[in-house]
Amino acid sequence: MKAAVIFGSKSDSEIMKKASAVFEEFGVPHSVHILSAHRVPELLSRTVKKLEEDGVEVIIAGAGLAAHLPGVIASLTLVPVIGVPVAAGSLGGLDALLSMVQMPRPVPVAAVGIDNAANAAYLACEILALKYPELKTKLSGFRISMKAGFEEENGVV
Amino acid sequence: MKAAVIFGSKSDSEIMKKASAVFEEFGVPHSVHILSAHRVPELLSRTVKKLEEDGVEVIIAGAGLAAHLPGVIASLTLVPVIGVPVAAGSLGGLDALLSMVQMPRPVPVAAVGIDNAANAAYLACEILALKYPELKTKLSGFRISMKAGFEEENGVV
Amino acid sequence: MKAAVIFGSKSDSEIMKKASAVFEEFGVPHSVHILSAHRVPELLSRTVKKLEEDGVEVIIAGAGLAAHLPGVIASLTLVPVIGVPVAAGSLGGLDALLSMVQMPRPVPVAAVGIDNAANAAYLACEILALKYPELKTKLSGFRISMKAGFEEENGVV
Amino acid sequence: MKAAVIFGSKSDSEIMKKASAVFEEFGVPHSVHILSAHRVPELLSRTVKKLEEDGVEVIIAGAGLAAHLPGVIASLTLVPVIGVPVAAGSLGGLDALLSMVQMPRPVPVAAVGIDNAANAAYLACEILALKYPELKTKLSGFRISMKAGFEEENGVV
Amino acid sequence: MKAAVIFGSKSDSEIMKKASAVFEEFGVPHSVHILSAHRVPELLSRTVKKLEEDGVEVIIAGAGLAAHLPGVIASLTLVPVIGVPVAAGSLGGLDALLSMVQMPRPVPVAAVGIDNAANAAYLACEILALKYPELKTKLSGFRISMKAGFEEENGVV
Amino acid sequence: MKAAVIFGSKSDSEIMKKASAVFEEFGVPHSVHILSAHRVPELLSRTVKKLEEDGVEVIIAGAGLAAHLPGVIASLTLVPVIGVPVAAGSLGGLDALLSMVQMPRPVPVAAVGIDNAANAAYLACEILALKYPELKTKLSGFRISMKAGFEEENGVV
Amino acid sequence: MKAAVIFGSKSDSEIMKKASAVFEEFGVPHSVHILSAHRVPELLSRTVKKLEEDGVEVIIAGAGLAAHLPGVIASLTLVPVIGVPVAAGSLGGLDALLSMVQMPRPVPVAAVGIDNAANAAYLACEILALKYPELKTKLSGFRISMKAGFEEENGVV
Amino acid sequence: MKAAVIFGSKSDSEIMKKASAVFEEFGVPHSVHILSAHRVPELLSRTVKKLEEDGVEVIIAGAGLAAHLPGVIASLTLVPVIGVPVAAGSLGGLDALLSMVQMPRPVPVAAVGIDNAANAAYLACEILALKYPELKTKLSGFRISMKAGFEEENGVV
Repeated sequence: MKAAVIFGSKSDSEIMKKASAVFEEFGVPHSVHILSAHRVPELLSRTVKKLEEDGVEVIIAGAGLAAHLPGVIASLTLVPVIGVPVAAGSLGGLDALLSMVQMPRPVPVAAVGIDNAANAAYLACEILALKYPELKTKLSGFRISMKAGFEEENGVV
Repeated sequence: MKAAVIFGSKSDSEIMKKASAVFEEFGVPHSVHILSAHRVPELLSRTVKKLEEDGVEVIIAGAGLAAHLPGVIASLTLVPVIGVPVAAGSLGGLDALLSMVQMPRPVPVAAVGIDNAANAAYLACEILALKYPELKTKLSGFRISMKAGFEEENGVV
Repeated sequence: MKAAVIFGSKSDSEIMKKASAVFEEFGVPHSVHILSAHRVPELLSRTVKKLEEDGVEVIIAGAGLAAHLPGVIASLTLVPVIGVPVAAGSLGGLDALLSMVQMPRPVPVAAVGIDNAANAAYLACEILALKYPELKTKLSGFRISMKAGFEEENGVV
Repeated sequence: MKAAVIFGSKSDSEIMKKASAVFEEFGVPHSVHILSAHRVPELLSRTVKKLEEDGVEVIIAGAGLAAHLPGVIASLTLVPVIGVPVAAGSLGGLDALLSMVQMPRPVPVAAVGIDNAANAAYLACEILALKYPELKTKLSGFRISMKAGFEEENGVV
Repeated sequence: MKAAVIFGSKSDSEIMKKASAVFEEFGVPHSVHILSAHRVPELLSRTVKKLEEDGVEVIIAGAGLAAHLPGVIASLTLVPVIGVPVAAGSLGGLDALLSMVQMPRPVPVAAVGIDNAANAAYLACEILALKYPELKTKLSGFRISMKAGFEEENGVV
Repeated sequence: MKAAVIFGSKSDSEIMKKASAVFEEFGVPHSVHILSAHRVPELLSRTVKKLEEDGVEVIIAGAGLAAHLPGVIASLTLVPVIGVPVAAGSLGGLDALLSMVQMPRPVPVAAVGIDNAANAAYLACEILALKYPELKTKLSGFRISMKAGFEEENGVV
Repeated sequence: MKAAVIFGSKSDSEIMKKASAVFEEFGVPHSVHILSAHRVPELLSRTVKKLEEDGVEVIIAGAGLAAHLPGVIASLTLVPVIGVPVAAGSLGGLDALLSMVQMPRPVPVAAVGIDNAANAAYLACEILALKYPELKTKLSGFRISMKAGFEEENGVV
Repeated sequence: MKAAVIFGSKSDSEIMKKASAVFEEFGVPHSVHILSAHRVPELLSRTVKKLEEDGVEVIIAGAGLAAHLPGVIASLTLVPVIGVPVAAGSLGGLDALLSMVQMPRPVPVAAVGIDNAANAAYLACEILALKYPELKTKLSGFRISMKAGFEEENGVV
């Protein structure tokens, strides 16, 4: 079982480390890369190829502004790519969201919410859980305990 | 291997049948359901539970306007849910896109482009291909032939 | 006479307590619940059913982002549901507004302004006042004194 | 039991008659008025006063562009006002939606979806049903038969 | 020569006093009023009538959110009304701008930029200058000195 | 009494002739010019100067897309400039609206609604009426007869 | 002197041939390519390298939706890249515009207006004219004759 | 080799000096001007003419709000004009972006990202490099060292 988290600049790391935190919580081995689609296209291409050879099964890519990173990765591999639009700049991440989600067929990116790297990792876990039943068990336990916590804490206030 | 395609009303079927077409091209068994999160919440809940029991591994959900369908399904299952925002109404599908993609943690929806049900199915295939190598082979062959077609047809015009 | 205020997470409570404040000012009995449509759908369903049995006559539901909460509640009950879009995230609440207001027929949500939980409660009071004349009297008195205050304070500056 | 439907110009009538159709289906007596907040403010004011005297219990107001009509009505009465943003002009009704929903406290308008006059009438019925149990019974029967129809027609396709 | 500045709440005064500052700079007599279209519609109506009797020749109206104030004033008078959309709330004043500018014929509001009360006053001065040549002279002098200042200060940096 | 209507290309004339129609209805002498701020800046500048010499008292300028025309005219004259954003292109005129209304101080443009050239002319009439009482009388008569027409035609339907 | 026009699919050719038309008018040698950043990234990369070797001096790239094409090209070359956002899909080209214009430093794309391939070619001509004085002469002649045509045709109407 | 940087007010200088910094890094001689299209149109016109006489080969123009500056400059010269939309005001620079990029044919502005003056200068360098091979060499070296830095610093984290 292997995932990867890629993002375009150090300024995205505060947002993107929420994905790593979820992966750590669920015991998903993963690597983290800072790689720009525009600044180092060849390095990105080589890295994606290497990740494929190493058996990566899902890639999370976060970017802001004209957020091409997940789409470019998706053009280089058939591994599912999850895009995290980052709210950089002054448009609140709407630019990044549209730059990711509106990919042409047949090169999809799975977009999650703006700045919501945690949800990207939950989605990655759901995808991996199809193949790895022990991860399904963990996710299921997590949902049950989340619900139990809710019932306990948030009765009628 | 089993997928499901769910959408909220017959008016979405023209868009959503592009997902079925891709599934058929790649030989992915799937069922199609017209089910509204708001009109028949109990039936939706029962259907999702039944799909889970039947071993569904990925669900595509298409909806327009306040497009809650994929999010509500995602709250009922740990199977990955792919959302297709449908451009119903007068806002071009921006309402549906935001209603899907901005899901709270830990209940992700994987949003694809507005009206892009084909891409939802390609993404579903990529997800299933992690577990079913024969599907990966088909996807890979499809990309190779797509590229070859491009090289042939679209040299310098 | 009975109202309920429901919202999805503690981070919404600062906004949503303005609804409670209005209810308290007008003597409207109400309960407050923190309940997520996506995290605890079954608990939400049970709570709405219980509120119905207890005779709740109007429900205010506040949520941000993909704000499904009021729509999901409206799918579970025929009690009028008032939605408060909360400006969480980076899009200023436009996502939450569209996720609420664009509900399909025949499952309406009554949307008020972004972050305007007070107006949700005033609307709830107007609805309840149809049946409870003493509340109409209070609302009427409040408008008259508001106008008097305006006339007094804000003559020509 | 008495409702009113008001809209600003004949060009809105195609949209707004969907509200009348729902009222007729549920047997809700109602009057229909073409009245502009800006062109005939005094006539609007007189009409609202007269509707109040006649015992109107809910008002639906539809308008496009700078859609002040429901807000102006809400400033003249304590009867609940439901706003229908009409997609006139080139902005898809976003202008009308914002002009309605963003009302200041304590003068709420209950906004429903763009062009969704039917939902306005369903909401009006839910409000009236609090006081008129026979209407609640009809609404409940309608939801049950809608669900039954869904179950019948839309099993697995 | 007489102008009026009207706005809906004290929270707008910081923005709107820039209009007064310009009027003072150009010696335009004006009164300032805090008056809400929705909270005190009758007082607003009486005030506009009184301003008309007193010979007011241009009215500046500032408001945020569902900014009906200038449109409602324009429905009550034939004096030119200039609207200042105020960036209250979370949508940056786009709601207020659309609520003002999209007025139906034949009840125009002259919208200026978001929060740009100074420009509203400059526009008012230009309008008044048609009738009062001494004001034209002042405006003309102001533009000339502004240009001279620019030439002096901002040569090649 | 003299007005001018200027717009950037023949494709705007269908929209802009509504301004001329209103001027004709109220007997306002006016000239019409097709002049682009970007294509013929010197001709525009000369024309504005000539209009000023001829005593023009209000200028209506319509444009689409990056609609600089009214702002550029406003930079060349102290005559009030009314801008009509034209819904050319694919953004519904939002581009033109923002390009006009967001003018910096002290160079205001009075923006009216998208494609609403008629309202531009009504606003121009209101401005001219400050100086020409006979126009005020006509406008007042028009509003009265409009209201009478409304009362007659649109009683309770 | 050599330019290239690249776009992602045949559906863009109607828009993009306006660029070719301008190049033909001004005698700019150019090649036209249909090449997708996502479908044939390697072919795109090889083509850009080959264009560079052939001495291409400016590249126009048109694309819709998540319009990565110009940005990806810009990451592969130091030749100036001009992006034409195409209004494909339901968002009027705003998605394509933001996907192009919001490129990170130091990989700029020069965006022109939505669907405005002609302007892309005029911009390309201006860029080439820096090096090729005969093109400057042609552009200058074109502007002069455009202005003359305007003066002739569009005097006071 | 000569460039110019023009912007409308001192408040833009923090953003725009990033363009100067890039020019200095690459040894591009340039002048900087604070000049408003609306406040000093004649001075702007004279300055552009003078810059042309001095042999300027590319102009960067930054502005916020109704950002006419680059378009007005482009109407005065055939030198390529690069526009930098500045995020002034409350709309995040979307107003400035649309005011620049949507220019009519045949008067293009090359828009770069909101507040991204550095990218404007990189684009200017790419344009100048067509004619000045030594600049091409510097740009090429910069890209190579940027890539090398990336490879070094950002291996797998």
